[in-house]
Amino acid sequence: MADPYDVDILVEGVLAGRRLQLARAITLVESSRPDHRQRARLLLQRLLPAAGQAVRVGISGVPGAGKSTFIDALGSRLVRAGHKVAVLAVDPSSSRTGGSILGDRTRMAELAASDNAFVRPSPSGGQLGGVARATRESMTVLEAAGFDVVIVETVGVGQSEVAVGDMVDTFLMLALARAGDQLQGIKRGILERVDVIAVNKADGDQAGEARVCARELRGAMRLMTGDSAKAPEVLTCSALTGDGLDEVWEKVTAHRAALVEAGSLAQRRADQQRSWLHTLTESELLDALRSSPQVRAARAEVEAGMTDGTVSAPEGSQRLIETFYA
Amino acid sequence: MADPYDVDILVEGVLAGRRLQLARAITLVESSRPDHRQRARLLLQRLLPAAGQAVRVGISGVPGAGKSTFIDALGSRLVRAGHKVAVLAVDPSSSRTGGSILGDRTRMAELAASDNAFVRPSPSGGQLGGVARATRESMTVLEAAGFDVVIVETVGVGQSEVAVGDMVDTFLMLALARAGDQLQGIKRGILERVDVIAVNKADGDQAGEARVCARELRGAMRLMTGDSAKAPEVLTCSALTGDGLDEVWEKVTAHRAALVEAGSLAQRRADQQRSWLHTLTESELLDALRSSPQVRAARAEVEAGMTDGTVSAPEGSQRLIETFYA
Repeated sequence: MADPYDVDILVEGVLAGRRLQLARAITLVESSRPDHRQRARLLLQRLLPAAGQAVRVGISGVPGAGKSTFIDALGSRLVRAGHKVAVLAVDPSSSRTGGSILGDRTRMAELAASDNAFVRPSPSGGQLGGVARATRESMTVLEAAGFDVVIVETVGVGQSEVAVGDMVDTFLMLALARAGDQLQGIKRGILERVDVIAVNKADGDQAGEARVCARELRGAMRLMTGDSAKAPEVLTCSALTGDGLDEVWEKVTAHRAALVEAGSLAQRRADQQRSWLHTLTESELLDALRSSPQVRAARAEVEAGMTDGTVSAPEGSQRLIETFYA
Repeated sequence: MADPYDVDILVEGVLAGRRLQLARAITLVESSRPDHRQRARLLLQRLLPAAGQAVRVGISGVPGAGKSTFIDALGSRLVRAGHKVAVLAVDPSSSRTGGSILGDRTRMAELAASDNAFVRPSPSGGQLGGVARATRESMTVLEAAGFDVVIVETVGVGQSEVAVGDMVDTFLMLALARAGDQLQGIKRGILERVDVIAVNKADGDQAGEARVCARELRGAMRLMTGDSAKAPEVLTCSALTGDGLDEVWEKVTAHRAALVEAGSLAQRRADQQRSWLHTLTESELLDALRSSPQVRAARAEVEAGMTDGTVSAPEGSQRLIETFYA
């Protein structure tokens, strides 16, 4: 049997937009096996010149805000308008099985059935760092395959949003009209990174409530940013009826166009790349520290000594570093 | 001339509560010189059995909230009640000079003049990690010298509070009555770590406004924690007149007593120690990475390649890691 991860074949297949090689290339960059990492680096190195052209959008939202339905509806519209749309996810809590891939296809049924869309569930892997790395590298693969809209979905638990904010051009948050707890449902660290807010499910009986919620959020955003020019746009929409989806997409592209006009998109992406280089380098070194069996054994001893009160933290850390270098 | 950093002399002097050796010991743990670090580790290792008994309180607040006056007034009361009170600070923005040490003594004039108090300005050093390390280690020195109340002041810019929250038992925030921007002035990441809030300057014409502010903050805290039992206590006080200071201290000690009663103080401190061990170990390794001249030279090349689009971040990070190990 041919090697499924032959880098030459993968590069050629991805650049030609063939789904089999595309899926395999993403599986390769998701892997943390050292030999796979080695090949993934070669692959990404060769795909890089063809990547970087997509509109990169992060989408977050409180549980129940209807992210899947929204992405399905928005993505399908974009496909009909001639775009190639990829959907990735960052969800460190997911543990992928065959079943949940199917689940992911089911929950974005229309989009997943399209030849011009590619829906990929979050890589599993437990730690946010690993999941974010895989998603970021998958983005490069998908851009090289000609996807011009990349949507990165996140689970809405705080740190994931920060990671996604570091890889997209524009961050869209879905909110839900539920009187009284608009602020409570939104993790505070996220608010500072949001560019557009859409109050979803603005349909039927809930349309009025959604408008009230949007008005309240608009006020809260102005208060919190302390500068209404910098406050994110707040809209209402309904993924169910499609109302407002075009307007939301307009705000997303307008935000990005403003970045381009100000010359700050290139700068933002260069900054993201540099920060990404540092994150990767440091996380690889710390992985080596954490996975060293010698360090792990020494750590158990040091922690026992700290519990006894016989070892101080500075002394203990010195021992661990010496063990690592040895 | 005798070696001012002789570890035997420092240990003996600190345990006897002598101020000269105390000050020198703190200067030693604040230093980042490798030979000083080596001695500091020995020193801390020997002082550790005598440390750990103090009430550790973090104090933060918006600029203008009157932190210095508050700490001066509260600390002086505690000294009069028989306590030995140490005041440390975490302020990565400070660049200490002879002048600002004097400044620090001036701004806490009463406390600084007391034999049973020790006021130390923030170590300078630029990076939060280094400043937090020095403060944490100074805390051990001061506890070994018999200080039973250690107050750690922080500047109110976000990350410093998180670092201080990881080294104290109870976190007190000073707020200021200024209608309308209570939420804006408080960094959002801090709210989750605050145990007690005191609205200061509740005196003269401002007393009523302070009470209104306290009521608003109480409501906001309940909304944000989503659980009124977990919401921090909110009080008013005046560092100027002394009104309410005893009540604030009661809430601080009551919070700590509840931790002790629930058996969670020992657990919290053990967790802090373990997390501190990991932080120290990882930061020392990353320091070595960042300060390597070979890695720095390679990074400049890699970043140039990334700007050209000829080097991917995964490839670049691999090169940097190989350079570091070489």
